[in-house]
Amino acid sequence: MKYAIIAIGDELLAGQVTDTNSGSIARMLEPHGWELQHVSVISDSPEAIVAAVNLAFCDVDVVLTTGGLGPTKDDLTKQTLCRIFGGELYENAEVLANVERVVGARGLKLNRLTAAQAMVPTSCTVIQNEVGTAPLMWFERDGKVLVAMPGVPFETKTMMRRAVIGRLVGRFPSADSLQRRVVMVHGMSESAIAEMLVEWEDSLPSYAHLAYLPKPGVVCLRIDGRHTDAAFLGAEMERLHGELIALIPSGNLMAATDVTPEKALLDCLVDRGLTFASAESCTGGMIASRITSLPGASRAFCGGVVAYANEAKTAMLGVDPAMIATHGAVSRQVVEQMAAGALKRFGADIAVATSGIAGPDGGTTEKPVGTVWMAVATAEGTEASVYRFPGSRDRVIDRAATVALLSALTRLQN
Amino acid sequence: MKYAIIAIGDELLAGQVTDTNSGSIARMLEPHGWELQHVSVISDSPEAIVAAVNLAFCDVDVVLTTGGLGPTKDDLTKQTLCRIFGGELYENAEVLANVERVVGARGLKLNRLTAAQAMVPTSCTVIQNEVGTAPLMWFERDGKVLVAMPGVPFETKTMMRRAVIGRLVGRFPSADSLQRRVVMVHGMSESAIAEMLVEWEDSLPSYAHLAYLPKPGVVCLRIDGRHTDAAFLGAEMERLHGELIALIPSGNLMAATDVTPEKALLDCLVDRGLTFASAESCTGGMIASRITSLPGASRAFCGGVVAYANEAKTAMLGVDPAMIATHGAVSRQVVEQMAAGALKRFGADIAVATSGIAGPDGGTTEKPVGTVWMAVATAEGTEASVYRFPGSRDRVIDRAATVALLSALTRLQN
Repeated sequence: MKYAIIAIGDELLAGQVTDTNSGSIARMLEPHGWELQHVSVISDSPEAIVAAVNLAFCDVDVVLTTGGLGPTKDDLTKQTLCRIFGGELYENAEVLANVERVVGARGLKLNRLTAAQAMVPTSCTVIQNEVGTAPLMWFERDGKVLVAMPGVPFETKTMMRRAVIGRLVGRFPSADSLQRRVVMVHGMSESAIAEMLVEWEDSLPSYAHLAYLPKPGVVCLRIDGRHTDAAFLGAEMERLHGELIALIPSGNLMAATDVTPEKALLDCLVDRGLTFASAESCTGGMIASRITSLPGASRAFCGGVVAYANEAKTAMLGVDPAMIATHGAVSRQVVEQMAAGALKRFGADIAVATSGIAGPDGGTTEKPVGTVWMAVATAEGTEASVYRFPGSRDRVIDRAATVALLSALTRLQN
Repeated sequence: MKYAIIAIGDELLAGQVTDTNSGSIARMLEPHGWELQHVSVISDSPEAIVAAVNLAFCDVDVVLTTGGLGPTKDDLTKQTLCRIFGGELYENAEVLANVERVVGARGLKLNRLTAAQAMVPTSCTVIQNEVGTAPLMWFERDGKVLVAMPGVPFETKTMMRRAVIGRLVGRFPSADSLQRRVVMVHGMSESAIAEMLVEWEDSLPSYAHLAYLPKPGVVCLRIDGRHTDAAFLGAEMERLHGELIALIPSGNLMAATDVTPEKALLDCLVDRGLTFASAESCTGGMIASRITSLPGASRAFCGGVVAYANEAKTAMLGVDPAMIATHGAVSRQVVEQMAAGALKRFGADIAVATSGIAGPDGGTTEKPVGTVWMAVATAEGTEASVYRFPGSRDRVIDRAATVALLSALTRLQN
């Protein structure tokens, strides 16, 4: 089933908020064979909403909108949907009760503006928003469906899962099966991989397609398959996935599913019953934060130190101040002591450390911005390497954290 | 000047990559009075590209495209642009030299696929990509301009700044001045603020508009102004900004510019010459990571401990194991000792600590998922409070980090 998304909000076009709803909706509907045709990001203007809805219905039978349902004056979506689907706004008692419940659970009092969330078009079927105040609205006309959803990502994601996906899939059962397999490769460029795979790619059957998705430090290879026969496609996808895995040098294979470096590392640690600690200078907590973003991180992650000031490297990780004085904080000697210190103080099985110059200031000719020393320590010893990452502060921090996580993974795999 | 963006890439529609380019382009062009009309996110298909370009040119004279320029087979944008603007692909020697330079600087060898980046339409003016291999292409027809840019956010951002903005602004000098002022409010809901401001909002002149942008823990109020007379508008925006600031209770005013909680805190610390440390359990390094994402963080941030395991709370922060045994890790007593421990061990002027249950597991009836204890410690003493944040693990962590940063800021402001 093909569908379109319209993301409504001046704040999206002003670049103050990034539309993450479209991506999460696409990921949720994809396993049901639903294919997102296009996303339009438009302003909170009735004309833009009318034009985008009409245009989307030229191509697809289902349109999902997000945003434009807030209680304040800049949101005009509901009135505009009455213009498109007919009807008028009325106060829905069930929505009002739900709004009161949600507001009460937040320890707040219902005010006039929030109460206005209970005004809904007579032409829609309301889907109660269990986790927010803006109701979801299902419109239908000439076999075409529009579902208006809130703009708050958490609310959209929750209500998609609890109510919208089931109704959509029930209303439009799919004929085609759409399946996807992923292989994550690290330590090779997109073009080097493509050159290696050129023959295999040319041999792919018509119902399968290979896509390259470069991510920081990693290239994600995705096989997309589409066929009416789900069982046949499943078997074919398994075969193609196996072929692709076999073509990647084992030292460059990060994972055979779509996982982040932190997830690949955590899974590996948990599988082997090992614990992990971090000692971060330039990455400033990014390594710890990425590991602890994962449910179950506590099964393997002891903790970490963000040793930003030199005094903290000494006090919290036992780095010799003379080493810092002689070699500088961004050096093999210091980063090795940081990793060894974290291993010991947290009592972990493996520890990583980073020390570098994230920029924009602080670079020298010898150690320019982007220079990052990294070390991985285990009971068997500590190994360090130096990298030079291009780009802005954010990018250096992100890349350094990724490479640190992958370095720990590589150490465990070897 | 009105313009549109077309973001090209199957990976965007599959939800594997989020389009952040549109937002950063919008933020860069906004100070020049450029107004983004809409964003279309489309697949790597020639038909979709042709349709989106034609449609965009109905509304605007400038279209910026991002993505679809990679060296691998799934990118067909250049061929399609030849279909739209005429011409054919040829190997451009300067682009080839640039590609060789960029690839060489990365320590890689030029392969056949990367070399194909030098193939460009005869109908465009090339803008060399100084930080990547895919060249930028400027097309012009009947007074309308299309600039094709790479999809890698760092490359697009860098080349926008270095080459594209200047050319666009030079080609279409703007008549209207567009200005924006922001006030950040914390501790009040969007509707409570709106109710408080309803009269003032009704009194706004026709050339000014107020928008509400709720962010986690904070509401951003933005006044948008547009007028032909830039000096007049500047004076009016100052007046309106002052009026709005005066209407917000001082305890709820986070900042009078568009800053993140971490930036507001860092600025306050640096202004007062104070240092900061963190002790994180459930936020897992997010507080440290957000502070150190800012250039100059080292002027105020000593460091932090991510004390995930109970043993780490004791070893690294001096938390009494008996306290953990008696009250549990998620308790007033433990979080106060964590904050006090971080204050002392890092020798900081102010420290924050978090301990909570981020979920999805680990909740109890007494301490459900989302329960987070927080403490702020200074030489004058330690204060703790407990929160209960709704939603998923990511959301609990993010909200807890935001509230912790704002708690430190509030403590400094009082």
